[in-house]
Amino acid sequence: MKEELRHLLESLLQNGSEEDLGVIKQLLEGVQNKIKGNRRTYIDGILHMETSFENECYEITIPISPVIHNNLNIVHGGITATVLDTSMGVLVNRLVPEGYGAVTNQLNIHYIAPGIGETLRCKAEVIHKGTKTMVISGEAFRSDGKKIAYATGTFFIIKKG
Amino acid sequence: MKEELRHLLESLLQNGSEEDLGVIKQLLEGVQNKIKGNRRTYIDGILHMETSFENECYEITIPISPVIHNNLNIVHGGITATVLDTSMGVLVNRLVPEGYGAVTNQLNIHYIAPGIGETLRCKAEVIHKGTKTMVISGEAFRSDGKKIAYATGTFFIIKKG
Amino acid sequence: MKEELRHLLESLLQNGSEEDLGVIKQLLEGVQNKIKGNRRTYIDGILHMETSFENECYEITIPISPVIHNNLNIVHGGITATVLDTSMGVLVNRLVPEGYGAVTNQLNIHYIAPGIGETLRCKAEVIHKGTKTMVISGEAFRSDGKKIAYATGTFFIIKKG
Amino acid sequence: MKEELRHLLESLLQNGSEEDLGVIKQLLEGVQNKIKGNRRTYIDGILHMETSFENECYEITIPISPVIHNNLNIVHGGITATVLDTSMGVLVNRLVPEGYGAVTNQLNIHYIAPGIGETLRCKAEVIHKGTKTMVISGEAFRSDGKKIAYATGTFFIIKKG
Repeated sequence: MKEELRHLLESLLQNGSEEDLGVIKQLLEGVQNKIKGNRRTYIDGILHMETSFENECYEITIPISPVIHNNLNIVHGGITATVLDTSMGVLVNRLVPEGYGAVTNQLNIHYIAPGIGETLRCKAEVIHKGTKTMVISGEAFRSDGKKIAYATGTFFIIKKG
Repeated sequence: MKEELRHLLESLLQNGSEEDLGVIKQLLEGVQNKIKGNRRTYIDGILHMETSFENECYEITIPISPVIHNNLNIVHGGITATVLDTSMGVLVNRLVPEGYGAVTNQLNIHYIAPGIGETLRCKAEVIHKGTKTMVISGEAFRSDGKKIAYATGTFFIIKKG
Repeated sequence: MKEELRHLLESLLQNGSEEDLGVIKQLLEGVQNKIKGNRRTYIDGILHMETSFENECYEITIPISPVIHNNLNIVHGGITATVLDTSMGVLVNRLVPEGYGAVTNQLNIHYIAPGIGETLRCKAEVIHKGTKTMVISGEAFRSDGKKIAYATGTFFIIKKG
Repeated sequence: MKEELRHLLESLLQNGSEEDLGVIKQLLEGVQNKIKGNRRTYIDGILHMETSFENECYEITIPISPVIHNNLNIVHGGITATVLDTSMGVLVNRLVPEGYGAVTNQLNIHYIAPGIGETLRCKAEVIHKGTKTMVISGEAFRSDGKKIAYATGTFFIIKKG
């Protein structure tokens, strides 16, 4: 397996463009972060999520790079959904009692403007805090401050295994 | 840059688990597919999307692997959203006249069951075909046939370039 | 109270147009249906809902009249929502075990075409039948067969008082 | 027609309960308001909508009465949808240039708590103000201040006839 991976990388180094090499770097560093335990999931590592939590508001910021582009070279709507869903879900997890977790039951997203620029920042806030469900809003902004998406979701609160 | 990437890979080969190496393989092969021109985007390549189009119905199937897991080790809802949005958006692109494309305006997803098993298959169909907008449904299934999500979205039809 | 109502009606009979009188007739007949026990709610009576249930599919048809128009003289989107929500909710109620009922947790509606013509028909079907929640679709059609709206909703199954 | 309506009313006065008579009063006064030109639609009149507009925020308050109850004797979700949609749509109409109007393209509602108490108040605010579409939020509150629903909608801006 290891030799196979070395050969695979060499082949990419020979045929890849500068953009391709940048993408490979982001991907491998993402796995590295996961291995080091800095991130809980590969997705989290690959997207290089930076987080903050304050006043019942949870934020995630990621760099915008070709890795997350769609075929129009703007941020893929599914990536915006991924970062929104993650920020909203983590917020619920922060607010539930010990021993409980959250799963997304439903997520609605309005796409407002193209995701371009340096970074994508998603901000999750509470709309309704119940004992069985929470309704959470998520806003996505690009680095020039423009809102690119607005989401709301219903999260189920479940007792962990 | 190339030397940096070789060192990065070596460090991962030393410290990574078998799962980590499998993830690296999937990621590098994803980039390879993009370089070879088999896939239009890195996301498409990394997720190893297999597609089919028949009778105004577009399907995408991807393998389920740790790359797309959330911290509960099931498919991240954002990945399901990504494959749903892609299948729905590509369907619209197939149905619009030459010179036109589609952008997602709004996407609503009901999450129904955990994404586990071998593969995730998303199937997009037309609810309403207008000249300015289309409304599309997307269903996601796992390999045992269970429906894991149901989505609807509004797509705007835009003149390209 | 009775005398007040008689005076109120007389004043309307003097000042109202033919359309106004038709509206009054529909409203009073709606209350009459509720009093006679043919309908469970005033809304149901006023909208003159006709229903059918077959093969896990529940339908409601109502006449389109000025009572339910918005200021553009087409069916008010809220009325379409009301008939969709009712058909979807009643369907769930038909499918749950004895002693259980359903409440709408979330409802998403795509409005597709203006509600004009003779009647509005809403058709509810099951997307997912769970023991705690159901996901239901609702389609609204006008009398010329054109689809005017498509909805999906999450319904919570609750034990009745 | 007039004689028919008088007979209809008399029959209701004989057979109706006190609640039924209260409902008839609300309905007839609703039509009266429409005739007098105080309200633009019968729905608006029947629901006795009171409105306010300030700082790009539009509010509608209605009394809660048996007219708008579902079969659980709480506000029918469709009525909440109607008042939300109306407040959100009127807000867009207030914000578009002269000669333009708005139609609801999509509406998503989270139902949070039962609609009980004296009044239902819906508050619409701007999430995104574009030239072709607007995204609007709507919150519904009952008289004890509890939030009972949260909605977002996409509105299309159209040139009027």
